[in-house]
Amino acid sequence: MEDQSPKPIRCKAAVCRGPGEPLTIEEIVVDPPKAYEVRVKIICTSLCHTDITFWRTEFATAFPRILGHEAYGVVESVGEYVEGIAAGDAVVPTFMGQCDTCLGCASEHNNLCTTVPFIFGPWMRRDGTTRFWDAQGNPLHDLVSVSSFSEYTVVDVTQAVKIDPAVPPKIACLLGCGASTGVGAAWKVAKVEPGSSVAIFGLGSVGLAVAQGAKMCGASMIIGVDMNPAKEEVGKSFGVTHFINPSQLGNSSVTEEIAKLTGGGADYSFECIGVSSVMTDAFTSTKPGKGKTVILGVEKHNGPVSLPSLDLLSGKCVMGCYFGGLKPKTDVPILAQKCMNKELELDGLVTHEVGLQEINKAFDLLLQGKSLRCIIWMDK
Amino acid sequence: MEDQSPKPIRCKAAVCRGPGEPLTIEEIVVDPPKAYEVRVKIICTSLCHTDITFWRTEFATAFPRILGHEAYGVVESVGEYVEGIAAGDAVVPTFMGQCDTCLGCASEHNNLCTTVPFIFGPWMRRDGTTRFWDAQGNPLHDLVSVSSFSEYTVVDVTQAVKIDPAVPPKIACLLGCGASTGVGAAWKVAKVEPGSSVAIFGLGSVGLAVAQGAKMCGASMIIGVDMNPAKEEVGKSFGVTHFINPSQLGNSSVTEEIAKLTGGGADYSFECIGVSSVMTDAFTSTKPGKGKTVILGVEKHNGPVSLPSLDLLSGKCVMGCYFGGLKPKTDVPILAQKCMNKELELDGLVTHEVGLQEINKAFDLLLQGKSLRCIIWMDK
Ligand SMILES: [Zn+2]
Ligand SMILES: [Zn+2]
Ligand SMILES: [Zn+2]
Ligand SMILES: [Zn+2]
Repeated sequence: MEDQSPKPIRCKAAVCRGPGEPLTIEEIVVDPPKAYEVRVKIICTSLCHTDITFWRTEFATAFPRILGHEAYGVVESVGEYVEGIAAGDAVVPTFMGQCDTCLGCASEHNNLCTTVPFIFGPWMRRDGTTRFWDAQGNPLHDLVSVSSFSEYTVVDVTQAVKIDPAVPPKIACLLGCGASTGVGAAWKVAKVEPGSSVAIFGLGSVGLAVAQGAKMCGASMIIGVDMNPAKEEVGKSFGVTHFINPSQLGNSSVTEEIAKLTGGGADYSFECIGVSSVMTDAFTSTKPGKGKTVILGVEKHNGPVSLPSLDLLSGKCVMGCYFGGLKPKTDVPILAQKCMNKELELDGLVTHEVGLQEINKAFDLLLQGKSLRCIIWMDK
Repeated sequence: MEDQSPKPIRCKAAVCRGPGEPLTIEEIVVDPPKAYEVRVKIICTSLCHTDITFWRTEFATAFPRILGHEAYGVVESVGEYVEGIAAGDAVVPTFMGQCDTCLGCASEHNNLCTTVPFIFGPWMRRDGTTRFWDAQGNPLHDLVSVSSFSEYTVVDVTQAVKIDPAVPPKIACLLGCGASTGVGAAWKVAKVEPGSSVAIFGLGSVGLAVAQGAKMCGASMIIGVDMNPAKEEVGKSFGVTHFINPSQLGNSSVTEEIAKLTGGGADYSFECIGVSSVMTDAFTSTKPGKGKTVILGVEKHNGPVSLPSLDLLSGKCVMGCYFGGLKPKTDVPILAQKCMNKELELDGLVTHEVGLQEINKAFDLLLQGKSLRCIIWMDK
């Protein structure tokens, strides 16, 4: 009788051997999925700023490693106890899980699954081991248990979101991180209401996705704030109705300009940069009595957010979120559907496409601010 | 034909002639109500910390003045254009208005009426003039257009909340500020859910009212945090289930203790003191992924609230409010009804009662931390 269980797979991956070093395309071995895991053949993946952050990181223990956490693929095989998902299913791996049974998943206000907690380390799977080995048999670390810069990866079943195979691969891929974070922040966290005013600080991929999310929710004024004048045009293609370049305001402040446009302050503001002082600006730019500020940017130095307390007392609110407050398995398929019927138009986020061999070009483009999202195709 | 219009009234009031000086009981003249105003015969009033703050204040222009903003009374006469309220109606004057037509009132998320904006100055009525004159004919300033330390006062019609005359005067009086602020913060701002955990920093009148509000909403764990060991017993009579004295924790922190009790953090926390560092503690003591922090205390130096940004990103939320996020005319009558049917038990907030002549005793008791609320009866 033949052993039908999944075997290790030899395939190509882009390996990061040291902080800030160009990735090397290597042949690696990907273990079979263990219990509660699925092995996924990656179709395409894209580069997000968080990959850059961890590519640069100095934590010695994290190398060599396989980065990548925004992707689309097809299940190749499943491990023991996996239910509801099978070989051949189209999936979006997500850095946050959803088990549907823990206290976090049970709460409608929480998207932190505690069964497989979302952590930035220690760069191994649920059981503390790796699924990736280099040609010399040395273990390779991963990134948030996704590691999509590989032809094959293994993800926990709670982190594999089944998706309609009719969704275009590029769109499915985008929904794995940045686009979902932005759209979700407007839709699920701020709960933007029809006719409202929105200010978005930073028109990168996440900020532009916020604009689409706000438009989808019916916002009537969407103010984009960015130091880069080129963002005015791209912003408008995503639904931005007004543009403010803080470097061209003279004696006025962003907060004053937004107050003028909105009659006192924006109903909602979103910080998509990750700078403490901009978080404060986003807060002071909202309407007294009801303004909601959503923090999406990761402050690189974990600096504190500082809020004038009397301004908060007027009835304002500040909230943060990971992954746009979305529950991945519940909400990503909904967003995919909204993309299919054009309620959401995210295609413009894809500015470049390369094959796996050219992955370092994707890094250059993002580092130089030339790309929004660069799709990396595995079969090219 | 006799002139039926209201005449000036001579009556007694407690006048504050200078910052920090004992109030003097004087005979004053109260003008008739102007357009959109009602004149109210005060039955009883109580002393709130905000009165103390403004009693101490050094703004020279604010004296002489009549303090007081938590009260119950009966409408004596009404000015031109007043509708829906008439002489003989029982009312609670509130420092915030509700016109029901402005954009603030129209929004379900906002309790800042913009028709008569809530401001701490310039200590005069809507038209910039006073309604109070001393025996020498000099104008007397007021406090948030309420000034209830007088047998008669004049309030804007948007600030006069009609109330069921069956509500006991003391309860109605308490609902004019502190008790409503605390109950509203739990009920309308945090929207405390059944079975949840709550941490309250500071068990003064507002904190104890938060406990009652949380209990009313079905919270299953209500943790009181106070440096005063005597607050353990009084807290329990208001629904507090667990008590933490931060000065008796040794090497542990309040945040660690609350995490132990709640399995990771409280679902909701409330800061009722007004100290920046306590605001940060309240925030860090909430549950990652969903914790809501409500700021009720007024930071005396308008110091900023500082929040660790990564902690916020996990999905936490911080909000502030005036008057517990309540719309006075809509919500105060509902709270009064809940007091009548014992869903809310606020009677314990009244620890002392005096007549107007003894009003300085009320100040001494609050300054010495001996009272929660001292009711000042006008007819004693
Ligand atoms: Zn990402
Ligand atoms: Zn879960
Ligand atoms: Zn209004
Ligand atoms: Zn008060």
